[in-house]
Amino acid sequence: MKKVGVAILGLGVVGGGTYQILTKHREDYKRNHKVDIVVECVLERRRERAAELGIEESRICSNIAEICSNPEVDIVVEVMGGVEPAKTFVLAALNAGKSVVTSNKELFCKFSHELEKAARKNHCGLFYEASCVGGVPVIRTLLDNLQGNRITSMMGIINGTTNYILSKMSSEGASYEDVLKEAQRLGYAEANPSADVEGYDATYKLSILSSLAFHTKIPYTNIYREGISGISVKDINYGKRLGYATKLLAIGKNGENGIEVRVHPSFIRLTHPLASVNDSYNAVYITGDSVEDVMLYGRGAGALPTGSAIVGDIIYCATHSSFQYSPFENTEKAARTTKFIENFESAYYIRLDVIDKAGVLAKVSSIFSRCGISVAQMVQEDLPKTENATVPLIFITHNTREHSVRKAEQEINALQGVASVASIIRVVN
Amino acid sequence: MKKVGVAILGLGVVGGGTYQILTKHREDYKRNHKVDIVVECVLERRRERAAELGIEESRICSNIAEICSNPEVDIVVEVMGGVEPAKTFVLAALNAGKSVVTSNKELFCKFSHELEKAARKNHCGLFYEASCVGGVPVIRTLLDNLQGNRITSMMGIINGTTNYILSKMSSEGASYEDVLKEAQRLGYAEANPSADVEGYDATYKLSILSSLAFHTKIPYTNIYREGISGISVKDINYGKRLGYATKLLAIGKNGENGIEVRVHPSFIRLTHPLASVNDSYNAVYITGDSVEDVMLYGRGAGALPTGSAIVGDIIYCATHSSFQYSPFENTEKAARTTKFIENFESAYYIRLDVIDKAGVLAKVSSIFSRCGISVAQMVQEDLPKTENATVPLIFITHNTREHSVRKAEQEINALQGVASVASIIRVVN
Repeated sequence: MKKVGVAILGLGVVGGGTYQILTKHREDYKRNHKVDIVVECVLERRRERAAELGIEESRICSNIAEICSNPEVDIVVEVMGGVEPAKTFVLAALNAGKSVVTSNKELFCKFSHELEKAARKNHCGLFYEASCVGGVPVIRTLLDNLQGNRITSMMGIINGTTNYILSKMSSEGASYEDVLKEAQRLGYAEANPSADVEGYDATYKLSILSSLAFHTKIPYTNIYREGISGISVKDINYGKRLGYATKLLAIGKNGENGIEVRVHPSFIRLTHPLASVNDSYNAVYITGDSVEDVMLYGRGAGALPTGSAIVGDIIYCATHSSFQYSPFENTEKAARTTKFIENFESAYYIRLDVIDKAGVLAKVSSIFSRCGISVAQMVQEDLPKTENATVPLIFITHNTREHSVRKAEQEINALQGVASVASIIRVVN
Repeated sequence: MKKVGVAILGLGVVGGGTYQILTKHREDYKRNHKVDIVVECVLERRRERAAELGIEESRICSNIAEICSNPEVDIVVEVMGGVEPAKTFVLAALNAGKSVVTSNKELFCKFSHELEKAARKNHCGLFYEASCVGGVPVIRTLLDNLQGNRITSMMGIINGTTNYILSKMSSEGASYEDVLKEAQRLGYAEANPSADVEGYDATYKLSILSSLAFHTKIPYTNIYREGISGISVKDINYGKRLGYATKLLAIGKNGENGIEVRVHPSFIRLTHPLASVNDSYNAVYITGDSVEDVMLYGRGAGALPTGSAIVGDIIYCATHSSFQYSPFENTEKAARTTKFIENFESAYYIRLDVIDKAGVLAKVSSIFSRCGISVAQMVQEDLPKTENATVPLIFITHNTREHSVRKAEQEINALQGVASVASIIRVVN
């Protein structure tokens, strides 16, 4: 029976999960896939962590060179995260002729061109299903299932931390700050949560997924990004009353006039399948010209779900004699020829804080009209009037351009003392 | 550039869709996948159908031998449906060294062992993503993404016709007969609808999917089957009031004591992601020991969605140098060693038609108790009493065994003139 040796770089959450799955199911893989997958060695400084997982001292390496020169190692699993030293280690492994399986979205998003070049040169595989949306099979679906389509749109809930926070704010009415604290206590959010809550993590993943979907390199720096730290329970509740769920959506569209890619909080119709993706579940909703709509849903993170994706790639690599690289010219140069749409079209939810309702409506309407914004729906509430208190005035617009809304925002905020823009959330109908 | 020649057997709905996609995107595939996929010829008696699709006379073949002996043909696409002559043609193609892509669930379900044997012998690919759930990428997900898991359960809405009928009955309150007629008029149901409405189509697909999930041959003849023709709007409405949607579910479970596989109408909690899969949409909900829950959702049928799966397989076959066969011993003999559970466990919805409510409750309760059935919920309605009219008495049971429920059904029906069992629907909580 074919034997395949694996080295795991990093025994964090995902590395530990991967080790556990491979160990538990070794006999299953021999029986079902005719391959004996053996964890030859691990790279990990914390010896107590290795011991906790039952890994013998003799299998702990202290540097990448040891792994690269080990002829028993066929596949290197990089689950360290971050750019360095992961990048140096992955390039060393590829140049030593080892195939690589990685869960590192930041590394792959920023350097896929360089890594794929090394993989091709050395006739090695480079697999990264685990880099996006944990156990949800979205990368191989784009590579091997939907590749006959022209994909026109993808929308995803691809960050578990923010979806957990928004779901809790919605279901419990708790404030952003309180839910974030709870998420940190439970280990769902990091001590420094900005990579998640400010949308960076989602832009890395959207960069990878939209590159595959649209067959061209989409640098994460071209992705419009807005996090959830400005979202209030008040807006989530107004959204519900208007028929929307509030989600941090990663959106990619490929149209006649170019590509638009953006990550921002969105109102999405409660009847849309993505609206009921709650807590730490993730989902990606893909539209292609042949397949129509496909949604892939599941656990976007965690030791075992992400480990499942890693192990899927390991078995694929161990049982296929050919590798698959990105189906487009994956170079930095190629990215510079892509046309990106920044002034994108969307419907908008706009909430104003208004002091003198009667007086302000005419002024706001005239600003909207001047900016070419057409209003689909308006909500005004008669709250009990207290001294100096503002009342909310809410608009849902028809489709309009981002720049028009920004212009209107400026002009409304200039109506000093009368009205100010409290929040703007894009609406997916 | 590598050129790959395709022959399409049958220009029905899916064959036509496949031809259209390949023609429309030929340049895209050259650019993105570095392969020129050319439809060399088609096998189709109706010349006017070929003409309608724009296929020249010279590319229409009149028999399979012509295709098998054509050195320009690398891949044969079988989209004829039914066992014969499809089986003869597919075996001829494989034996002539052509790879095969098929959408034929009945053929693959019944003869996969024979077809895979021929494919292996001739070093050809045999791809069948399109055989199950149209454009939804469930087969490759099982083969190449979740293969590191022990899959414990799968539940699917995998027949579009029945889901359309049940969705319409639920949303419009129309009778089964009326909705079926409308579905036939719209082309969603066949003139003879029994393959769909009696659940045969779903058992073929569940046979294929559960074999892949559980790594053992699951013959469709081992699948418990019950169609939707006995479902009434009355039960669908009671279901809604109790918090359930009514769906034809295909269920596979792989537990300590064996495998259970069944296709039957089910009540499923409205909060379950499968409950909101409506109309002709399909979905498969898979649970694995590492990945936890994954749901794949999309169009389960149609020219272009199924064509998308066919073309995905064609490009995969054209760009990979190795093939993938079923990851288990795919023989008729292997199936005979699998232990199947027939007396499965489930919760049940039981609706009785009762004449004398007060008198009957004690009797029914004592039957339930004797059969070991424990009741979780009971609903009785005070309908205006008319002469000889029956009133409904509804029970939701705790988990119990199929055989216990069947025994109770017999005993209740023997309480002649007092009560009879109007319907029994299994409940997924």
